[in-house]
Amino acid sequence: MKRIGVMTSGGDAPGMNAALRAVVRWAAANEVEVVGIRRGYAGMIEGEFVPLAPRDVANIIQRGGTILRTARSKAFLEPEGRAEAARRLAEAKIDGLVAIGGDGTFRGAIKMTQEHRIPIVGVPGTIDNDLYGTDFTIGFDTAVNTALDAIDRIRDTAASHERVFFIEVMGRHAGFIALDVGLAGGAEVIALPEIPTGPEEIAEQIRLSEAKGKHSSIIVVAEGAYPGGADTLMKAAQQIHPFEGRVTVLGHIQRGGSPTARDRVLASRLGAAAAETLVSGSSGVMLGEVEGEIALTPLAEAVERRKPIDRSVYDLATVLAE
Amino acid sequence: MKRIGVMTSGGDAPGMNAALRAVVRWAAANEVEVVGIRRGYAGMIEGEFVPLAPRDVANIIQRGGTILRTARSKAFLEPEGRAEAARRLAEAKIDGLVAIGGDGTFRGAIKMTQEHRIPIVGVPGTIDNDLYGTDFTIGFDTAVNTALDAIDRIRDTAASHERVFFIEVMGRHAGFIALDVGLAGGAEVIALPEIPTGPEEIAEQIRLSEAKGKHSSIIVVAEGAYPGGADTLMKAAQQIHPFEGRVTVLGHIQRGGSPTARDRVLASRLGAAAAETLVSGSSGVMLGEVEGEIALTPLAEAVERRKPIDRSVYDLATVLAE
Amino acid sequence: MKRIGVMTSGGDAPGMNAALRAVVRWAAANEVEVVGIRRGYAGMIEGEFVPLAPRDVANIIQRGGTILRTARSKAFLEPEGRAEAARRLAEAKIDGLVAIGGDGTFRGAIKMTQEHRIPIVGVPGTIDNDLYGTDFTIGFDTAVNTALDAIDRIRDTAASHERVFFIEVMGRHAGFIALDVGLAGGAEVIALPEIPTGPEEIAEQIRLSEAKGKHSSIIVVAEGAYPGGADTLMKAAQQIHPFEGRVTVLGHIQRGGSPTARDRVLASRLGAAAAETLVSGSSGVMLGEVEGEIALTPLAEAVERRKPIDRSVYDLATVLAE
Amino acid sequence: MKRIGVMTSGGDAPGMNAALRAVVRWAAANEVEVVGIRRGYAGMIEGEFVPLAPRDVANIIQRGGTILRTARSKAFLEPEGRAEAARRLAEAKIDGLVAIGGDGTFRGAIKMTQEHRIPIVGVPGTIDNDLYGTDFTIGFDTAVNTALDAIDRIRDTAASHERVFFIEVMGRHAGFIALDVGLAGGAEVIALPEIPTGPEEIAEQIRLSEAKGKHSSIIVVAEGAYPGGADTLMKAAQQIHPFEGRVTVLGHIQRGGSPTARDRVLASRLGAAAAETLVSGSSGVMLGEVEGEIALTPLAEAVERRKPIDRSVYDLATVLAE
Repeated sequence: MKRIGVMTSGGDAPGMNAALRAVVRWAAANEVEVVGIRRGYAGMIEGEFVPLAPRDVANIIQRGGTILRTARSKAFLEPEGRAEAARRLAEAKIDGLVAIGGDGTFRGAIKMTQEHRIPIVGVPGTIDNDLYGTDFTIGFDTAVNTALDAIDRIRDTAASHERVFFIEVMGRHAGFIALDVGLAGGAEVIALPEIPTGPEEIAEQIRLSEAKGKHSSIIVVAEGAYPGGADTLMKAAQQIHPFEGRVTVLGHIQRGGSPTARDRVLASRLGAAAAETLVSGSSGVMLGEVEGEIALTPLAEAVERRKPIDRSVYDLATVLAE
Repeated sequence: MKRIGVMTSGGDAPGMNAALRAVVRWAAANEVEVVGIRRGYAGMIEGEFVPLAPRDVANIIQRGGTILRTARSKAFLEPEGRAEAARRLAEAKIDGLVAIGGDGTFRGAIKMTQEHRIPIVGVPGTIDNDLYGTDFTIGFDTAVNTALDAIDRIRDTAASHERVFFIEVMGRHAGFIALDVGLAGGAEVIALPEIPTGPEEIAEQIRLSEAKGKHSSIIVVAEGAYPGGADTLMKAAQQIHPFEGRVTVLGHIQRGGSPTARDRVLASRLGAAAAETLVSGSSGVMLGEVEGEIALTPLAEAVERRKPIDRSVYDLATVLAE
Repeated sequence: MKRIGVMTSGGDAPGMNAALRAVVRWAAANEVEVVGIRRGYAGMIEGEFVPLAPRDVANIIQRGGTILRTARSKAFLEPEGRAEAARRLAEAKIDGLVAIGGDGTFRGAIKMTQEHRIPIVGVPGTIDNDLYGTDFTIGFDTAVNTALDAIDRIRDTAASHERVFFIEVMGRHAGFIALDVGLAGGAEVIALPEIPTGPEEIAEQIRLSEAKGKHSSIIVVAEGAYPGGADTLMKAAQQIHPFEGRVTVLGHIQRGGSPTARDRVLASRLGAAAAETLVSGSSGVMLGEVEGEIALTPLAEAVERRKPIDRSVYDLATVLAE
Repeated sequence: MKRIGVMTSGGDAPGMNAALRAVVRWAAANEVEVVGIRRGYAGMIEGEFVPLAPRDVANIIQRGGTILRTARSKAFLEPEGRAEAARRLAEAKIDGLVAIGGDGTFRGAIKMTQEHRIPIVGVPGTIDNDLYGTDFTIGFDTAVNTALDAIDRIRDTAASHERVFFIEVMGRHAGFIALDVGLAGGAEVIALPEIPTGPEEIAEQIRLSEAKGKHSSIIVVAEGAYPGGADTLMKAAQQIHPFEGRVTVLGHIQRGGSPTARDRVLASRLGAAAAETLVSGSSGVMLGEVEGEIALTPLAEAVERRKPIDRSVYDLATVLAE
């Protein structure tokens, strides 16, 4: 391969820029040209291409978001859209693609490969950590630390006011953020999509805490742990056992910010490995880090298999909450 | 005076511990004993008193929240409750009181002085900055920086996704946080209780931005700027001019965290000055910092007069948003 | 004036970009063109000019450093260099200049005005806060908070290990950073250029602390407080009274980082006011904020008069250190 | 076992408190009493014991340092001192010990077991990450992120001034911090004890950068990478090829601060597992996390075997530095 494309797609995640930088610089060191595709599949269809040399990715390793931007594309959901995207890639003499994103990004990649034989290698960039084939996705560690900082702040108020705080963190289908944040934040209860905790259990837990003379609690709730989220869950629990509660939905602050060291190192490793994998002729795989080693997983498997949460960590959090 | 009481009351604010430390250490240096009253007026009625020596306030200057905790008291709203509180203070031989808090705290203090002749001096501890008689309240600077950090994070995503973000910050009656955060965060629009901005203006502003090719915006909204808050405001604007928007309500993370240097310095100055003012025989006043100097304001004036926002800063923010 | 230049010069300070943004956007709103001069006086002599439109300063308000960069220029110290600089400005049809920097920057500006009648207005951008005519310089608040964060970290270790830590902060001629950091960090001793503290006093202070059973201390030392800095001072104190001590020189981390809210607001106000002042025909003045209001001070006075530290804050810190 | 002791020893590390909390709470949940030993081996000899119940470790998971404190003990280096320590443990009916610390701590533990048959289990708490038998030590991730934050700040200035910055990070014998920080911080050169980089190579690298028009560089140097450290290394390089350079020694700020999520999760896992291991009858082992799983390593092996740095990460950093 002489020229490869790189794009970021789906929800942005801290470390995407670090991955992008690694793709560009590894390629340059190996005499492969890189073309950046702006705004994901939308920009691919519209031919928003820009050459990327090593200096173009200077001073971005520490930046949140993605300098290539990202977007949703309705057109790409149709075969005509994908055909146009393939035509644009051919026109620009792009021989293969590194796609940085989450499951939506990879589903699109699978279609492009099936329909138009474009070689594509995926890099897992999403804060949710919900991709099979990598212990951690790029952005997860930063999101967890951002949420944890918020919980540390709220604990100051919870302890001062003797209140129960429900904190909703991201995770519609997966509880990875909630689990790590809950353990690290010393939460009294953690509600996950994988291990549902109903209002009865929460009410009971609060009653027990009160009986022990403990009047402030932190309850961490993953978005998808209860229909209606943390707010509905709290109100249902209050119906069973009244208590003074407050809800905070952390929302989009979890997506941004300068990536942590771990996310930068992971992104650098996976970005470089993705470029190397693509150039060496592989396609249809996602690069991941499993038990400290670089690992390849078929894109289809990465999006379809479910990565389980570590039940022992959940049990540990329960024990340590006292 | 030989023994004074100190309490924190109302919503907690970063820097309350620094103020408390200053009261205790100034008093010790001047041979006055200090008694800490736990849980505000509620603890006063229940006699939750604890002697405070200089070592008891070691290593707290950097902590958010308040080690004395704070609470609401229904009993204190009744004359009988306040009489009981006065009896408790007399019993403990407390000659006067430093009350750290916001307007609710000071209203209670005014009643205690009127009904029971307890000498009380107030220290403005509230993140809202809505007290007359001080340029800044303790906790305001920290809250603004916390909110600003959140906006910086969200801007990463806003810029990457070409979306409009509505960010609701604290401020039910006063727009101080929203104004400073809006200017410092480079917000395109700032909606304040003092200068209402309706959905029409916001829709128009977004339309203009789009016309200039700018697809991401940050709209900072004070809690009390629009009935129903940022969410209602966004939906109303979308009815007028459709756009892709997201709402984030920062909520209680703004209350917590380690205080900034400015809040620690302010709290130290006001705490020490409050102890000195009380011991020297004054009462019924709030200590503040006005134009860099310590200033006294009658408690009644502090809670009743309205401190205006600086219109020129608002106009500047508008010009600088481009 | 139809076209003005803007430059940053001297040591960089957080908030310089925010000031630059304010100059550019105020000017654009008032139909004045802005030319950015790269690398301070060095770039002026070499004609490194770049037009700056409002979009060119988008998304920089939160960035540390200066996008125009800064440099030292030996050539500018000579009359020939300054003549060449003036020629370059005339050639580019630049009618006046906003200079963002510290005393070296302003001394250069004074010469340019004297020798070549270039209208120049100064904006105080330096972390040292050592300019007369403004209560705070741009960058000071950020530097203080950065140093404070470092001290909070070191205190964890100091408390765990029962050691005495000497922390050297910036400030060759002025103790503003040391004073605020010392008070806010709860330092046991603060050594300033303005109020020298010798090894005898420090040894005595440590001896007293030990006698009270307190085995960890924080000593904040301004660079210029003692010949040889914190290291020499500690060793001299150890000669008098042996103790286990450690020195940390914070150094250049104090210069960088995203500016605080306060620095961004100050920079925005002063940048806009500087552009307005220049365009309205004034010259040879520095814009400052004094007691909350914008104030003008002749450049010569700004660099020659000495702004005193607030002795009452120093005394307060001493009392509160217990 | 009915009663176990726990102590922190050696240099403090962020996450020690989280590990301590996990030991105490796991034990309480399993009906084992816990006694805290203050000030490491020094406190053991002096019998500074304190019972620790679950509420005693509330609200410490987020705190840097160690609430048990730590100290060096000369007495413990002698057989008599260790005999006295054993006597104290017996007197307090302590059946076994969890020792949180680094290699010095474990060497002491080995002796106590050999000489006095005290069952001891180790938990790796040290920022240096230089223990065999665990992929990461507790405190390492926090130290790396603290150093990275400093580098991000310095880069602002480096980029603004066109200077070369040498940043010395901790690591006398091991380059783990330098390697991760160097890669994540985008350093141009990384000097490690394991892979020495002399002044010639650095001078050559700077010369090449200048030839490419790049005038600012970041050089990360581990303490033990060059005799005399970063300062000596820089001066030697300047002798070969003159450049404007600055040195910053990060020092003790790397030890403190609130632990990251990763460190809190790791500390919680290892602390609980250590208590469980000890109670179940094992001794003379260190708990670690290897490839995501809890692993046991003999204490002797943990301190004697050398954990290698990952050469591929070093090579990657070199490629990505452009």
